Amino acid sequence: MSFKVIEKKDLDFFNKILGGNFVVTDPEMLKENSHDETEDLSFFPEVILLPHKTAEIQKVLSYCNENNICVTPRGAGTGLSGGAIPFKGGVSLDMKRMNRIINIDEENFQVITQPGVITEELQNAVEEKGLFYPVDPASRGSCFIGGNVAENSGGPRAVKYGTVKDYVLGLEIVLSDGKIIRTGTRTLKDATGYDITHLIVGSEGTLAVITEITLKLIPFPKKRLLMSIPFTSEENATKAVNVILKMGVIPSALEFMEREALKRSSEFLKESSVYIEVPERIEAHLLVEVDGNDTDDLYNEAEVITEAISSLTEEDIAVAELKQEQDKLWKLRRVIGEAVKMGSIYKEVDTVVPRSILPALLLMVKKIGEKYGFKTICYGHAGDGNLHVNILKEGLTDLEWSAEVPKGIKEIFQFVVEMGGTISAEHGIGLVQKKYIPIVFSTETINLMKSIKNIFDPKGILNPGKIWPD
Amino acid sequence: MSFKVIEKKDLDFFNKILGGNFVVTDPEMLKENSHDETEDLSFFPEVILLPHKTAEIQKVLSYCNENNICVTPRGAGTGLSGGAIPFKGGVSLDMKRMNRIINIDEENFQVITQPGVITEELQNAVEEKGLFYPVDPASRGSCFIGGNVAENSGGPRAVKYGTVKDYVLGLEIVLSDGKIIRTGTRTLKDATGYDITHLIVGSEGTLAVITEITLKLIPFPKKRLLMSIPFTSEENATKAVNVILKMGVIPSALEFMEREALKRSSEFLKESSVYIEVPERIEAHLLVEVDGNDTDDLYNEAEVITEAISSLTEEDIAVAELKQEQDKLWKLRRVIGEAVKMGSIYKEVDTVVPRSILPALLLMVKKIGEKYGFKTICYGHAGDGNLHVNILKEGLTDLEWSAEVPKGIKEIFQFVVEMGGTISAEHGIGLVQKKYIPIVFSTETINLMKSIKNIFDPKGILNPGKIWPD
Repeated sequence: MSFKVIEKKDLDFFNKILGGNFVVTDPEMLKENSHDETEDLSFFPEVILLPHKTAEIQKVLSYCNENNICVTPRGAGTGLSGGAIPFKGGVSLDMKRMNRIINIDEENFQVITQPGVITEELQNAVEEKGLFYPVDPASRGSCFIGGNVAENSGGPRAVKYGTVKDYVLGLEIVLSDGKIIRTGTRTLKDATGYDITHLIVGSEGTLAVITEITLKLIPFPKKRLLMSIPFTSEENATKAVNVILKMGVIPSALEFMEREALKRSSEFLKESSVYIEVPERIEAHLLVEVDGNDTDDLYNEAEVITEAISSLTEEDIAVAELKQEQDKLWKLRRVIGEAVKMGSIYKEVDTVVPRSILPALLLMVKKIGEKYGFKTICYGHAGDGNLHVNILKEGLTDLEWSAEVPKGIKEIFQFVVEMGGTISAEHGIGLVQKKYIPIVFSTETINLMKSIKNIFDPKGILNPGKIWPD
Repeated sequence: MSFKVIEKKDLDFFNKILGGNFVVTDPEMLKENSHDETEDLSFFPEVILLPHKTAEIQKVLSYCNENNICVTPRGAGTGLSGGAIPFKGGVSLDMKRMNRIINIDEENFQVITQPGVITEELQNAVEEKGLFYPVDPASRGSCFIGGNVAENSGGPRAVKYGTVKDYVLGLEIVLSDGKIIRTGTRTLKDATGYDITHLIVGSEGTLAVITEITLKLIPFPKKRLLMSIPFTSEENATKAVNVILKMGVIPSALEFMEREALKRSSEFLKESSVYIEVPERIEAHLLVEVDGNDTDDLYNEAEVITEAISSLTEEDIAVAELKQEQDKLWKLRRVIGEAVKMGSIYKEVDTVVPRSILPALLLMVKKIGEKYGFKTICYGHAGDGNLHVNILKEGLTDLEWSAEVPKGIKEIFQFVVEMGGTISAEHGIGLVQKKYIPIVFSTETINLMKSIKNIFDPKGILNPGKIWPD
């Protein structure tokens, strides 16, 4: 599929719609929007457009559709699968000016927001009203809620609270031809027609541009405890996950870090008070958070957990009740991605399996790594079986990196799909996993999805080159 | 759209696939499958087919698609919108033999089931393993889980636990041409391609036939308390709903019954121990259930609730801790539909609004009833703003019933949609609400949904005549 190259008359049109300040062709800015946080991929847009209202997006899309100009919607550019990368050039539709929280409905526990609001800011704003939006990607301090919806983001709290899709009640979207569609309701129940809302959630900007989001909220849990549990065996750490959940306690987070992950993030934070020394014998850590409204209840749950895993670890368990102590431990977890990235070129795969399979997945990843000669650092959201596997280039030659590693990834993906899991839990497919899509879906399913794409975007101008194998 | 009339050669083919016992043309049986629990609608199928495995359904659909024979999937026939009624004749695809629970996964809190399992039996089976499938339609003793998925059923527990869509992780479906598609995963997270799963949930048998369902489960809450709270004013009862939720306590059910609803169901059960006398001054009741793992905690919550609503009612509040007491109170609630039906021809509308709007909705319903001269009995799932409005024919002439009542319904629906709600919370659109669909959706949205239908079922053989206005 090829698209029209943007010419002066197109820029003139965009200037008329958006005003000159919001039509950007400065090469430095184009470079910025040529990538996200995915490895070292970079594809330049021809222009960046910065709309601030739905009507502008409608006009831009309608024009681009008519003139066969491709459009890649962009949130904060924190994605890990290349979803916001303008693979075929054209327009980078940057949503950062659509950054207004429209309404927090304290009566009905809902928020209506534009897509360009930073997730953490949204969380803070609703927390002030005693409300909780629990979906908490590691990048929440910089990512946009719109990007989260487009990628169906997850994070550590999915084990108790689910992912983005569990909170989206309704959307305003603009189709490729400029039609505005409202989906869903402001109610928890809806049995009226087809669920277009959830077709858009996770569609990675390929079906429509999201211009407004209505989210369900829940009451903010007043108390949290965070347990840091060391293990002398990786296998025991992953086994502990299911042991805990089978007690009927559902932690609000249940995070796994192998030794190397914790060590690198700790070293990354060496200059700060967060630094911890990881003793030689420790092979893995679990972070277990419980939340609720009563501290005594939480200590009871912590006891249940400690008791349940007593045969799997004899190490001392730290329990953090104060927010600043918890923040330190979370920081160690949250910077792992960044820390690993510092040391080597890497590739992150976002595997997920039913959580009881996690011990087997970890063993399998290490075995496949040995077979193809690459090292991995693994960590992730163990409570929901979501293991981030960071494959390091380190000593590999370019040839090994480009020829052998994909074979290993393919084997890992075949294993997760066989086990009832999938090749992306929360990062999306985007550019980097698209060649592996046939491992997950039959040709019939791929064709069905492509037909749906074709209804929403018959000319294929929206985020071309993503999800489907070339 | 017209379909081929079924002839002997078609029956011969079906006999070959299913065996003679499972190809039914007996008029009594056809009559049975000509209706569900929706008012007095009846449209006869030409044949009932009773498959017991996916391969049979595949062959039947592929044949029907080729021969332009229409097919209406049928669960237990407990629907309230006519979804299972063979509006255009053809095949009634009766799923009652697809009644096997395939696997309860105690490790990962999941169940894989065929669609013809009775919802309550599924609930009991998972409860034995300490697991909970919370979605609890009033008909759970007879309805099928497959029908629940097709209609995106709700019930009283949605306020805390959500609706069917919040539990479906994956599906096996058969498309109209016989293609088998697997959707979703056995994991809580999935950011891989478009969410076909949730497009099928609530699609009322118009997109595909559901042949297998993977559901998420949660740990079974060990304890429940049920409070029965009388009010001398309907308005105060509806106001209490939000007052309770704003305390940060999320009841597992929060049910509203106006006086007449409770009175009729009580009289309906007069001969049983469930009967209660409703004092003259009582205008409404709330049933409030809280659940958890600790009885003391629940009594604390009950106290918080009692305190919170103290300015809205001075009546005695009954708190039931024993299961048999709770069952009695629930019985009074569950038979309302049946009890109301006994007394008069009626029409039930399944309105939903953001719950803070409930007091206004109730007033509006009564006002519109006065305007058009009809009486209503209202009850429902107040915690999620879902009010079932039963419109009684009683003294109305046939002309008034057919000419005036729809005008009133239209006004009610216009109000709920204006308020951010919708015209069906949990019953589906089916036959009876389809003429009101343009109140909810723009022409663009209807066309979009129809295009999706066209992809899944290009010849339109699956459940024709439903959802969309003629």
